[in-house]
This record gives sequence, structure tokens and C-alpha cells, in this order.
Amino acid sequence: MNRITLEQANAVIAGAFAKAREMALKPLGVAVLDAGGHLIAWQRQDGASTGRLQLAVGKASGALFLGISSRKIGDMAGERPTFLASLAPIAPGGVVPAAGGVIVVDANGHAIGAVGISGDLSDKDEACTLAGIAAAGLTAQA
Amino acid sequence: MNRITLEQANAVIAGAFAKAREMALKPLGVAVLDAGGHLIAWQRQDGASTGRLQLAVGKASGALFLGISSRKIGDMAGERPTFLASLAPIAPGGVVPAAGGVIVVDANGHAIGAVGISGDLSDKDEACTLAGIAAAGLTAQA
Amino acid sequence: MNRITLEQANAVIAGAFAKAREMALKPLGVAVLDAGGHLIAWQRQDGASTGRLQLAVGKASGALFLGISSRKIGDMAGERPTFLASLAPIAPGGVVPAAGGVIVVDANGHAIGAVGISGDLSDKDEACTLAGIAAAGLTAQA
Amino acid sequence: MNRITLEQANAVIAGAFAKAREMALKPLGVAVLDAGGHLIAWQRQDGASTGRLQLAVGKASGALFLGISSRKIGDMAGERPTFLASLAPIAPGGVVPAAGGVIVVDANGHAIGAVGISGDLSDKDEACTLAGIAAAGLTAQA
Repeated sequence: MNRITLEQANAVIAGAFAKAREMALKPLGVAVLDAGGHLIAWQRQDGASTGRLQLAVGKASGALFLGISSRKIGDMAGERPTFLASLAPIAPGGVVPAAGGVIVVDANGHAIGAVGISGDLSDKDEACTLAGIAAAGLTAQA
Repeated sequence: MNRITLEQANAVIAGAFAKAREMALKPLGVAVLDAGGHLIAWQRQDGASTGRLQLAVGKASGALFLGISSRKIGDMAGERPTFLASLAPIAPGGVVPAAGGVIVVDANGHAIGAVGISGDLSDKDEACTLAGIAAAGLTAQA
Repeated sequence: MNRITLEQANAVIAGAFAKAREMALKPLGVAVLDAGGHLIAWQRQDGASTGRLQLAVGKASGALFLGISSRKIGDMAGERPTFLASLAPIAPGGVVPAAGGVIVVDANGHAIGAVGISGDLSDKDEACTLAGIAAAGLTAQA
Repeated sequence: MNRITLEQANAVIAGAFAKAREMALKPLGVAVLDAGGHLIAWQRQDGASTGRLQLAVGKASGALFLGISSRKIGDMAGERPTFLASLAPIAPGGVVPAAGGVIVVDANGHAIGAVGISGDLSDKDEACTLAGIAAAGLTAQA
């Protein structure tokens, strides 16, 4: 298996929303991207603000851009703010330095896509991202 | 009803894919936008090319921008090519002049969103757009 | 008098809407710009499509950019399409080649601003532009 | 009521200017946006600087983008500067982190638009934003 299918992407979103209901979170947007950073599937829950797509994609796309989760990018941002700032004009989908964007890997550890969520606090967004990836039978980058 | 819910957006996509299977079309991408041009839901079938999101959104978003279907925009493009070309730098989501983008209206005829599809011939894309809107119990702009 | 005041700009819009009611036009958007192309006032009637601001500003701003009405730019577009196309990346507010954008001049014929309207057929848009300028006691470029 | 009408938008602006006169503020620009971030009405008082449109829209549009007032975005900017900086390339209308941009909600708490003001100190701008929303009989997000 070397790419995320639409069926799997939909399963990721369903799993993330199930986790969000369980945690009683605010309305979320969930983005599933392929390894090239192109959107396979996106759903935005009623009441979510207009920027959720850009934020969720900016987490997932930024993770693919740098090869690490958006949580780690957030840590990096505190230490190297000018490096993060330098990415603005060159990273097409943005690089949002906050937890919630996670790379999906195959059995060899190669990236086959990424999932990004935005809507509540970053830590809670990320809990749903991980729950969605697991629900679809996929593997999050360690 | 004055906005498209996520549940309705998902029903639009399911209806469009059902029509596409019936017509044995190539892999499609289906975008459902709110009245402000923001993406509510998006699904891209396996094998669809990387630009389907931009094309489908450019049809739906262009329809909302000008207030008419992307089919009519295509007709206009033949008659007034320089007018269409002038929109490139000022229309944020693009204006793709090809059938497949249709405005969804409420009971008063006001736009509450739009649906755009890209993947096969424009006429076939549009057939799926209209089938999806109908399947969700929504109304296409006349 | 060397600039359009806010009071005059509001009078332009009121005059344009009065003319539109008289002509029973579709919902319009009316933009009044200063000589530098910056928006003094804007009103969009209920039901107008999302792109009316960009279209109205693109007519008025394009008129200021080239020093002639957007109607004349439309004529030019038919004769010199590649010239028009070349403006896309360099004209910040766009250059929309369709009637409805008119420069406002002072007693010496110097530009003190421009008015742009979009919403119905270009000829009708322009009739409202001229009516609005006259209603405010201002002078349209000959 | 699920959208801000042009009549209401004009009432917001009139109310904001009345408050500004009462407070003897510098010249202001007032922007009223629909839920999708599109400008319904804009007025810039004589003497206001050229960037007031972009600043007022960046406050209101940023509020809609993140779902909170531009005052809260300003607080967030102090705590998480790199997160705010990351929004520059992905937020179409900008995200200006200073008081003066407030979301307008319907009876269910859903966003139906936003108002942004720029021209004087941010706290004073915001006082006019809130006064304008109240004068129009609309409800600011709590």
C-alpha cells in the first residue's frame, strides 16, 4: 500500500469526528492529503469558522513540507522563529506551527499522506487526528 | 434553510458519485462550497489528477463570483475572451469557464452555496453536479 | 475642489441606486475610488454575487490605471487583447474591460477619482455610474 | 434573520460614525462583511490614510477566519507570535491582531458577518464597532 485511498480518507474523517463527539469538541475541519500535499478529502462541521481549511491544510501540508508533525514544527517555531517566518513565501500550502497535523506512513516509514485538523485547542485537534488515522487502519509517523 | 449543512454536502457528493458510476465516468473530484465560496466538503476519487480541486473549486467559485453557472461563463468566454481573462488576477478562487459548476439557491432564489465537479468531459461533470444537488434535496439555480 | 469627499461619494451611490430602481436593474455594487485608486465608499445591494466588488473596482481602478473609461478599455480589448492580458500581473486592482467604470475630473480635467458599477449588463451599469456622478454634482471625464 | 442586509450595514456605519463624533476620534474607515468575508459596505472618512480598508477588513476578515474577535487575536499574537505569522500566506483577507474587528451573530450564535474599524487607537476603534453593531439592532459575538 503506497497511497491513501478515498475510502481510507473518509474513514479517517469519520474516526476523527467520532473522537470529537466523544470529547465534546467545538466544530472541526478535517483534511486528508496525499503524499504530494493534494487534498483527497475535506469536511467542515457546521459552525466552524471560515479559516479552518487553510489552518488544517497548513498543519498537514507543513508537516509534509518539513517531514515532521506540526506539533514538532510548533516546538521548532519557539526556538527558531525566523526560520519559520522564512517559509511563508515558499511553502504553497503554508506551515502552521501548532499540533494537529500528522504524517501517515507506509510499512517502510515512507510518507503516503498527512492529516490535519483545526477547530479546537491544538492538543485536542491532534487527539482527533491520531484517532482518525488509527480508525482507518493507517499508521501515524512515529 | 439558508445554508448548506455538512450532511447535505455529503449527500451532494454521494449523489454525484452515484451518477458517475451509472455513467461510467473517469475519476471525479466534487467540491461543495458555502455562499461565501468556502469549502464545506471535498472528495477526490482514486486516480483523479492533482488539479481537480482547483478546477472544481474554480467552476463553483467562479459561478458564485459572477452569479451564473460555469456553463454560462463558458459561453461568455467565447464571446468576450478579454473580459474573462481580466478576472484572473481579481477572482480569488479562479473562474473556470466550463460546465460543471452550479449555484445552489434557497426558496427565494438567493445563493446558499455552489457545487463544482471536474474529472471527465464538462457536460458529464455537470450532469453529476445536477444529480448530486437533486439527490441532496437542494435546488440548482435556474 | 481636488478630491471626492465621503459625502459626495455617498451621494454618487445614492444617485446610482435611484437610477437603478428607475431602470429596474438587478442588484448592483457601486464603488467610489479616490485618485489613487483607494476605495472611499462601497455598497452592494442584497442578492448581488460575491464578485461585484472586484468587478466594480476593476472597472474604476482600470480606468484610473489607463486614464480612460472602462468602456474604451473594452473597445481596446477587442483590438489589442494581448496588451490587455499583459496588464494582469501589474495592475493591482485589475483592469476589467467592460462599460461601467468612469473617471471623475475637476474643473481642469484632472482625475480626482473614479466610479465603478457591476451587477447588470455593462451598458446599464454605466448609465447608473453616469447618473450617480451627476447626482453628486461631479463631472465625468468626457 | 440569517444575513446582514445592506440597510443594516449602512446603519452599522452610521452608528459607528456617531460614536466616533461623540468621542472626537480621528477619521475612521468602517467595513461591514458578510459571513463569507465579502464586503457589503465600506465608508472612509475624509483624511483617513490609504491603508484603512486593508486594516479594517483584516480585522473583520481575520475574526471570521479564526472565529474570535480581533482583540482576542491580538492577545493570542502576544503569546504565539509564530502561529500568527504563519497565517500571512494562507488568510486571504489578512489577520490583523488588534481590537476593532467583531463577529456579528444570529440568535443561534452563528456568524452572519463581521465589522472592522481602523483609524484611531484600537480600543477606540472597537468601541465604535460595538456601538455600530448595537445601533443597527445586531448582536456582537460574546
